[in-house]
Amino acid sequence: MIELTPSQRLLMGPGPSNVSYRVLRAMSTPLVGHLDPEFMAIMDQVCQMLRHLFQTQNQMTFPVSGTGSAGLEAALVNLLEPGDTAVVCVHGVFGQRLTEVASRCGARVVNVEAPWGQPIDVQQLIETLQKHPQAKLCAIVHAETSTGVLQPLEELGAYLKGQGTLLVVDTVTSLAGVPVKVDDWGIDVCYSGTQKCLSVPPGCAPITFSPKALEVVGKRKSKVQSWYLDVRLLQKYWGSERLYHHTAPITMIYGLYEGLRIILEEGLEARFARHRELSARLAQGLAGLGFTFLAKEGYRLPPLTSVFPPQAELVEPLRKKLLSDYGIEVGGGLGAYAGKIWRIGLMGETCRAQNIAILLDALGREL
Amino acid sequence: MIELTPSQRLLMGPGPSNVSYRVLRAMSTPLVGHLDPEFMAIMDQVCQMLRHLFQTQNQMTFPVSGTGSAGLEAALVNLLEPGDTAVVCVHGVFGQRLTEVASRCGARVVNVEAPWGQPIDVQQLIETLQKHPQAKLCAIVHAETSTGVLQPLEELGAYLKGQGTLLVVDTVTSLAGVPVKVDDWGIDVCYSGTQKCLSVPPGCAPITFSPKALEVVGKRKSKVQSWYLDVRLLQKYWGSERLYHHTAPITMIYGLYEGLRIILEEGLEARFARHRELSARLAQGLAGLGFTFLAKEGYRLPPLTSVFPPQAELVEPLRKKLLSDYGIEVGGGLGAYAGKIWRIGLMGETCRAQNIAILLDALGREL
Repeated sequence: MIELTPSQRLLMGPGPSNVSYRVLRAMSTPLVGHLDPEFMAIMDQVCQMLRHLFQTQNQMTFPVSGTGSAGLEAALVNLLEPGDTAVVCVHGVFGQRLTEVASRCGARVVNVEAPWGQPIDVQQLIETLQKHPQAKLCAIVHAETSTGVLQPLEELGAYLKGQGTLLVVDTVTSLAGVPVKVDDWGIDVCYSGTQKCLSVPPGCAPITFSPKALEVVGKRKSKVQSWYLDVRLLQKYWGSERLYHHTAPITMIYGLYEGLRIILEEGLEARFARHRELSARLAQGLAGLGFTFLAKEGYRLPPLTSVFPPQAELVEPLRKKLLSDYGIEVGGGLGAYAGKIWRIGLMGETCRAQNIAILLDALGREL
Repeated sequence: MIELTPSQRLLMGPGPSNVSYRVLRAMSTPLVGHLDPEFMAIMDQVCQMLRHLFQTQNQMTFPVSGTGSAGLEAALVNLLEPGDTAVVCVHGVFGQRLTEVASRCGARVVNVEAPWGQPIDVQQLIETLQKHPQAKLCAIVHAETSTGVLQPLEELGAYLKGQGTLLVVDTVTSLAGVPVKVDDWGIDVCYSGTQKCLSVPPGCAPITFSPKALEVVGKRKSKVQSWYLDVRLLQKYWGSERLYHHTAPITMIYGLYEGLRIILEEGLEARFARHRELSARLAQGLAGLGFTFLAKEGYRLPPLTSVFPPQAELVEPLRKKLLSDYGIEVGGGLGAYAGKIWRIGLMGETCRAQNIAILLDALGREL
């Protein structure tokens, strides 16, 4: 079999984003065992840094041993039992995925929808929640990777604080790129992925469970349908008992450790400002080239910009040419927007002025 | 947060095993996107090498995006529906885990047991299968990581070939260390982990589904309870459709690619002989130091030797001293054998004559 020599890419799609040489180097560190006292110290430090990133005091904050979608599944399978009601917001692919997973848990799903490119109308959502006060949870996507919409959460969180319904939030494309305030916003379960604004390769899903969420898990009548994702078993491995559950993905944890260190060194506020300011620069450049935007103004997600290229017939050919001739990856559209939009990521390490310049230069030559 | 500088370890426990610098270097390769044509070529090559390793023609042979336990769960959740009967063999921790996961699928589990350290009695198992001809599957652990027993499978496979019951085999600690002949032995679903005899960090679970197994999945009345592990959705991503399901753990796939290349370069027969011959050398050395063996003679697993140290009161203190003073990790016992045995791994890269010499020298000094 031939040597592994993939081409160099500038990753400006919806993830993975570029990974720092520091993270790559950390991932070439020889391994210690998954029950080695040194590894347990690393696990603790990863959890501590994740708490900082999620802006939470939740003890049960850790990386799921799977990609972001495993995080989504972990959130729902632990909370939902057959017959439960789940209010699930859908304004893109990841709301649809939440619906699908919730229904595989045997939940009765009540959807609240918004057109792709729009945020969920929080007033309408609250009215739905008022009609379903027995709902076990309300699940919503903070940053819809399929549309580039950033969903406001404060008002929703404030409403749910007095209710029995748990708030579950998908922050796969927002965490470490825009503020995610788990405790302030009253989020009960929040999950993310490593390959977006954290700029770590895909393979882990940071997640946090509030004490209230864990209490609900503790009152389940049935066992969690996934043994692998059962948070009460995982608690015994990631917590102080250190009871063997499964073998943690050691090298991924090394990468995550280094990625989190980089984030802490930069500081959350500086990192959010960088994403905000450079995404404005990108948007201005794209508008100047005749691109128009899918996401509603005021709700655009700095780490991911979804655009209609100026010539509809060029959408896919030019995207392919960017990859083959320039080594630049931008994402295509999903669902009804397949072949119609591009999704341009400015996440973590990718979010640098020089990368915007490279992309705009290439587009200027080709358009 | 401090720099990541774990100590050097000689990993002679039940996994992870030592990882070649070639695999670590592959894991520091900058990433391409998970839908990049170059990544898809890498995916195809990984699947092709896995087929060689599993000795199968099964098209649906791929790495699950999770650790070995996710592979176990993927095998069972796809096949089992509520009310199904599953015959599950238990002669150690991993048979217990199969039982637990099968019951979380709503299956009625019929256990066939053997004492820890003994293989399952195949005649007794076949009698049980004859009493439960409607059983959807029979699950058995080929290499019990908790005891170091290698389970013979040929006779069982030959019996089941004419039956409707599917054969599911856990080869987490055998694949790439001893022969695993999926097609010859009539195995329908076979899964493994990367961190044992493949000598790749933990994080992926190679798995293979026979056409017969996929036919059974296709006839399910209910959806698979895990969306993340649903083989019919994964087929569309790993197969020719290339439909986005989740983001593959790119860096883990790079590591697996290089680890599989190393295995192919060595050749399966040479690799199996190396494990067989060096484990005999280790066993001889341990016996000379007064160690006795848990696993029944004739059924000892070359990659993992479970032993009673000569002084019972030294089991845990000496194991800790090996780690702290010599940097050598050996595994402790599980379940009833916690604090009573050691599990010494000679897997993949760890399985080298010099490592046996290092361990025996340390033990000679301490005993």
